Amino acid sequence: MSTTFARTPSGTELAAGTLPDRIVPPAPEHDGAVESLSAWGFQDTAFEVLPNRSVRMTGSRYDLSGPELPAIVPWVEEQIGIEIDPAQVNLPSYPPAIPEPRTHDAFLAEVAGLLPAEAITSDAEVRLRHGHGHTQEEMYAIRYRGTIARVPDLVVFPTSQEHVEQLVELAARHGVVLVPYGGGTNVSGALRVPAGEERMVVVVSLARMNRILWIDPTNRMACIEAGAVGRDIVAQLAGYGYTMGHEPDSIELSTLGGWIATHASGMKKNRYGNIEDIVLELTAVTPHGVLSQASTPPRESIGVDSRRWMFGSEGTLGIVTQAVVKLFPLPQVQEYDAVIFPDFEHGMAFMYDMQRANAAPASLRLMDNVQFQLGQTLKPVSEGGLGAMMSSFEKYFVTKVKGFEVNSMAACTLVYEGTKEEVAAQKRVAKRLAKRHKGLGGGSSNGERGYQLTFAIAYLRDFVMQYDILAESFETSVPWSQASDLCANVKRRLTEEHAKRGLPGNPFISCRVTQVYETGVCIYFYFAISYKGVERPSEVYTELEHIARDEILRSGGSLSHHHGIGKHRQEFLPRVVSEGTLASVSAVKRALDPNDVFGIGNLHAAQTVEG
Amino acid sequence: MSTTFARTPSGTELAAGTLPDRIVPPAPEHDGAVESLSAWGFQDTAFEVLPNRSVRMTGSRYDLSGPELPAIVPWVEEQIGIEIDPAQVNLPSYPPAIPEPRTHDAFLAEVAGLLPAEAITSDAEVRLRHGHGHTQEEMYAIRYRGTIARVPDLVVFPTSQEHVEQLVELAARHGVVLVPYGGGTNVSGALRVPAGEERMVVVVSLARMNRILWIDPTNRMACIEAGAVGRDIVAQLAGYGYTMGHEPDSIELSTLGGWIATHASGMKKNRYGNIEDIVLELTAVTPHGVLSQASTPPRESIGVDSRRWMFGSEGTLGIVTQAVVKLFPLPQVQEYDAVIFPDFEHGMAFMYDMQRANAAPASLRLMDNVQFQLGQTLKPVSEGGLGAMMSSFEKYFVTKVKGFEVNSMAACTLVYEGTKEEVAAQKRVAKRLAKRHKGLGGGSSNGERGYQLTFAIAYLRDFVMQYDILAESFETSVPWSQASDLCANVKRRLTEEHAKRGLPGNPFISCRVTQVYETGVCIYFYFAISYKGVERPSEVYTELEHIARDEILRSGGSLSHHHGIGKHRQEFLPRVVSEGTLASVSAVKRALDPNDVFGIGNLHAAQTVEG
Repeated sequence: MSTTFARTPSGTELAAGTLPDRIVPPAPEHDGAVESLSAWGFQDTAFEVLPNRSVRMTGSRYDLSGPELPAIVPWVEEQIGIEIDPAQVNLPSYPPAIPEPRTHDAFLAEVAGLLPAEAITSDAEVRLRHGHGHTQEEMYAIRYRGTIARVPDLVVFPTSQEHVEQLVELAARHGVVLVPYGGGTNVSGALRVPAGEERMVVVVSLARMNRILWIDPTNRMACIEAGAVGRDIVAQLAGYGYTMGHEPDSIELSTLGGWIATHASGMKKNRYGNIEDIVLELTAVTPHGVLSQASTPPRESIGVDSRRWMFGSEGTLGIVTQAVVKLFPLPQVQEYDAVIFPDFEHGMAFMYDMQRANAAPASLRLMDNVQFQLGQTLKPVSEGGLGAMMSSFEKYFVTKVKGFEVNSMAACTLVYEGTKEEVAAQKRVAKRLAKRHKGLGGGSSNGERGYQLTFAIAYLRDFVMQYDILAESFETSVPWSQASDLCANVKRRLTEEHAKRGLPGNPFISCRVTQVYETGVCIYFYFAISYKGVERPSEVYTELEHIARDEILRSGGSLSHHHGIGKHRQEFLPRVVSEGTLASVSAVKRALDPNDVFGIGNLHAAQTVEG
Repeated sequence: MSTTFARTPSGTELAAGTLPDRIVPPAPEHDGAVESLSAWGFQDTAFEVLPNRSVRMTGSRYDLSGPELPAIVPWVEEQIGIEIDPAQVNLPSYPPAIPEPRTHDAFLAEVAGLLPAEAITSDAEVRLRHGHGHTQEEMYAIRYRGTIARVPDLVVFPTSQEHVEQLVELAARHGVVLVPYGGGTNVSGALRVPAGEERMVVVVSLARMNRILWIDPTNRMACIEAGAVGRDIVAQLAGYGYTMGHEPDSIELSTLGGWIATHASGMKKNRYGNIEDIVLELTAVTPHGVLSQASTPPRESIGVDSRRWMFGSEGTLGIVTQAVVKLFPLPQVQEYDAVIFPDFEHGMAFMYDMQRANAAPASLRLMDNVQFQLGQTLKPVSEGGLGAMMSSFEKYFVTKVKGFEVNSMAACTLVYEGTKEEVAAQKRVAKRLAKRHKGLGGGSSNGERGYQLTFAIAYLRDFVMQYDILAESFETSVPWSQASDLCANVKRRLTEEHAKRGLPGNPFISCRVTQVYETGVCIYFYFAISYKGVERPSEVYTELEHIARDEILRSGGSLSHHHGIGKHRQEFLPRVVSEGTLASVSAVKRALDPNDVFGIGNLHAAQTVEG
């Protein structure tokens, strides 16, 4: 059982309080990875088209890195209906021109007394990077617009709670705007400085507040600074036999503080919970004071819990500086699997029954047919349509013997984590239910590949942008009964609207069910259009994405499952919550931050929104 | 599997949206049970001492009802060290004198236009009952004080969302105080009208907003009005094969709205979650508007979530009118079990390992030796010390063969709920771990008896009050490593303080671990003193309870696991949360309720506190 990993105190020890001490790990060692400033991910990794029209992922970071991938370009051409000429690369014009920083001498003088010079920068590219996340709008803008009208004026790197408290005090006193910054991976426009903001805007990067302050093995808790990056947390905790279990798609780059501020969800939430389940306690600095508490009980009822206000606060109320999180022992067993279904609906019914049987493994995801095909094209050696998930024999069996249609099949990937017994029990149920819904085993290596592809696929968007394709993902959550309809409605509506606008080629629309809950699911959409010859392509894309959101809301979906509101989904808030809710959120914002120190303008709390 | 109870739609149905409709159940039929006004529980049930010094529970409501219980009186006398004379009953002087109601003519005129006359009352006993919960302070006061200085001035019974909205609007306009009322079972003084409140105080009872509005079997959700009482919710949902799984000790009397307002915890939270896990969405009326939303996704990230503010709001921010909750199928299997340990510490180690093995059944509780003995005395036929949990043979085996000490043994009760496979897996682990920690099987009937005793034991407090014994329970939550120390510290401290005051007899102190979490436990204390000849006994008791709380906080425990703050624990809030937290909660209160319509004075949000 799990006690393999953590020492279990005996009854005597529990009685006497003579328990193992807290572990204080060393500061994380930097792994040498350098983030790209102009595209998603790390500098050592990018997709490129070779003269033979094969695609290759540079570097050696991912399973996908290295070999030629001959099937992508033809498949994308077929999907989008537009020819891709590898020679015609629309190279980014990064970096764009940005304005000179606004300055506030009195504030700067005090900051200079608080932080060392090397922890304060007005470097242009640093300011630019700290003023955007990863929406297509923002990435298109920094790569192709040539100029950005408003970016942060300064970036500072505090190293302590005291630094942050003093920065907030200084900002309030001098009328300066503060923007907390974690990994800069949001897809909500949350870091974009409102165009009308006349005050000096200072980004507070938590990058140097990235330590695991302590690990308590007996109670399975760790206190971690908010700037700690997901991949470092994973690596460090694993060294002691633990995980906090939170694995968002952005885990390589995003931070604990960012997870809290965006109300994040991890791919393995079935086993470990979402961020609000994992975080037991947090410390935050607001203009109204520091939110913190004296101890970390497992659960309590002490009134309206102000710590919970920071979940989903998106930088509008203050800065999360550290949090106490649950720890879980590294799983005794980790297994991957895949199941192929004749169509998406059979896959959905399987997912539903798995949830109903309380047998959902750590991760349970369903790819629609288009995404299933995408997975196949990312296979080193071309085997035609079904290569990635199956060998030639399997392909023959599935399509000829079982009669599955290549153009309707869907695939489910499963990640099991737990004790031998737990995993065995879940696998038994999965096997029985897969059979009930005409599923065929897709094999563990395909399951692992499907799961790991998440990280590599994230590089595709900025790659295809160079070939006049704008792509983006967006998500929602919806009750089970409305899920399939919602998917169909969004696909239909986007196809219609794409045609109505006379845009080139065909729209690429695909979806994936990424999370299951008792009452519903999270659905991810992947939507891409060719923008060859299209004017203001980014605006056109955003308009279509907002139409998709309209259709999602009409179909009973949420405004966001875990991406959040930021500025990108702000206009829809009044459709999903009552007037009283909006008024209350605004009232709370005004009460806690009367001078709008945290004036980044996200949520409805915004007093200024981008014009 | 669970699909026995709920129809599983096929893939085709999920795709086509042709799903079972929502079920609209009829209004709950009243079960005829009448609540006692002057004591805990129902009028048909009370403990009484017979001339032969046996105790009997009247009525036929509980397993315990009917037979003579000869062992209680001698055992209590031994524990407390004070002789009990059945003839010397300190009969309550209920009802106490209460003041004439304050009136506000303009408000009353408008209320008369809104509600029918029979839904508005200033009846003295009704007003009295709606102005207190079940702390010993409040129950002692209404039973023995003879007079209560301040009670609510009016009680109204709205039947619709519109009624509640208009009541809030009227109250705000006329400067009247509103107090939401559910089951009146709180143990935090939350319903006590602040002594200094000069305004008219109107209690808004949700008793007539008690319907299940709809059941959605496909998505396993139900929308329930906030005034629905636990026992009715259980009965009605069971008729459709469901449960919402929330079983607080007060479930016979408490309501959905009360559970939300107090941030309640249920005995079976290991399987179903606490109230914040079960409630997906709620509607609340605040002076700043109605908090509600358009749909019920399984989980979302849409900014600071104002609906969550109502959890633990204790009547200070508004009135919860309805909520959407998760449903679970009635378990395929329900089994009870008990394990006896040589001492509390062995039991704690067992509980710890059960949690670490992810094998905690729906309910897993540990009684200390005193509570174990109490359970034995509540056995119809006297068999001496060990009767209740064991037959004579078992007793012989446990004490003579296994060498357990009668005065140190502890007992764990387990309630398994789930599918056959789930329960079987948990039982296998429990068996193995019980053996590791020297546990002996206590039998399923003793397990069931231990669990069901919860409801009957609640009647003891008001019973012993008639024999000059003041008793009360209070709870905390604490990390595993501090749990045993905390229990020992509280027992030691109370014993010392009891002696220091020269109070009669011995203090009765017992504890029980009622909830397990990954990082810690919930601990309940039962503390009783004889007040024979003691002046102002209720105040003395409260002083001791607060000393216990001081010791709990010193020992790393929380201010409350699920009882909440109310007024009873208000003075301790500044010790457990930061100044900034208190300031922020107050700022939010002022922002959302600037006129203090919800002026009941709980939490730190209070603008007035009882003098």
